[in-house]
Amino acid sequence: MYSGAQVALYPMSDDFVGVILGALSALDPYRPKFQIETDDLSTLIVGPPELLFPAMRDLFVAASSGGIHCVLSATVSRGCPGHPDDDICTPLGSVGSVSPLPERIISAKQAVAEAAVTGQDVAAHFSLYPLGEGQHMDEIYGCIDFLKESGVFDRPKNFCTKLRGDAGPVFATLSEAFLRFGAPEEGHVAMDMKISANSPSRAA
Amino acid sequence: MYSGAQVALYPMSDDFVGVILGALSALDPYRPKFQIETDDLSTLIVGPPELLFPAMRDLFVAASSGGIHCVLSATVSRGCPGHPDDDICTPLGSVGSVSPLPERIISAKQAVAEAAVTGQDVAAHFSLYPLGEGQHMDEIYGCIDFLKESGVFDRPKNFCTKLRGDAGPVFATLSEAFLRFGAPEEGHVAMDMKISANSPSRAA
Repeated sequence: MYSGAQVALYPMSDDFVGVILGALSALDPYRPKFQIETDDLSTLIVGPPELLFPAMRDLFVAASSGGIHCVLSATVSRGCPGHPDDDICTPLGSVGSVSPLPERIISAKQAVAEAAVTGQDVAAHFSLYPLGEGQHMDEIYGCIDFLKESGVFDRPKNFCTKLRGDAGPVFATLSEAFLRFGAPEEGHVAMDMKISANSPSRAA
Repeated sequence: MYSGAQVALYPMSDDFVGVILGALSALDPYRPKFQIETDDLSTLIVGPPELLFPAMRDLFVAASSGGIHCVLSATVSRGCPGHPDDDICTPLGSVGSVSPLPERIISAKQAVAEAAVTGQDVAAHFSLYPLGEGQHMDEIYGCIDFLKESGVFDRPKNFCTKLRGDAGPVFATLSEAFLRFGAPEEGHVAMDMKISANSPSRAA
């Protein structure tokens, strides 16, 4: 399998370079497990699918902790047929639609319930794209059933689903949606996600 | 059909609210043709698929023209089976994989060649997701053939394709990729795109 993410941090601040550089050390514990490449649009992280969301969570919490309005945007992918398998991406456990939907929903809820709280409130929206199979809406609807019981479900939006809560369970929910739904282990799934903290337009 | 986009502007500035509010009037000419809704994460525009990218282009050029580093991020969709057809989304012309790939590539190149230049240089990367059919990689590879001849192709990246050039042909290229590739007119296609201007990390 091949799995990774194109990740970008957008701090709404004149000091956006300082905020980004100050947050990068949060990735240090993950560096031995990842290939990392940066250009002027994003940073590519390639590694085990289970570590992608914890790494993005730690990066985002580090960038947001000073109170600056920040957004993290990422395109996450597993199983893209355009990329050869890479040992660095070997999953730590089982990935994909390997068991019936109801069992996966239970496992996903349990993983979110066990997620550590970070103290950083966030809002997020995301879209999950199961690619290359005919019944993609069944997997989407099964994932939505999980999201509604995740404890961080906010509301459906057009083309995406909105979450709100502590960064710990929110990133865990995104990770579970990505890992357990959409396609078999060797199938192709992509996710488009945005996470926001400290927004002044947050409704009360 | 149902078509629209969740759009967000990220100005990397202490005055991000002022930059966003100052750019919104660029959407005024499109307002009679769109339904528009805003929350703390994004603005939803719903309307004819051919007008989505011109509207985003005008919004982004207005936000970037002062020299602030800005990113526009959007999730664009047509034909999502979760949404009923809406008259406001009636296409202005033919949309989707209605003719053989080589013919669509020629039409797409011609549309980009005719795009007006805006004077704003941008970099972009995007992913096109044809949903609900088995041969999605054929449409992706056909679209890549078009991109390579678009005049704004920069390079392939993992999980996405990078463009660079004037905002006029870049947004036209994104629009053509969205409108002409991926699925028939009634099929489901999504695009995840990021456009950046005035980045200090732009390589020389």
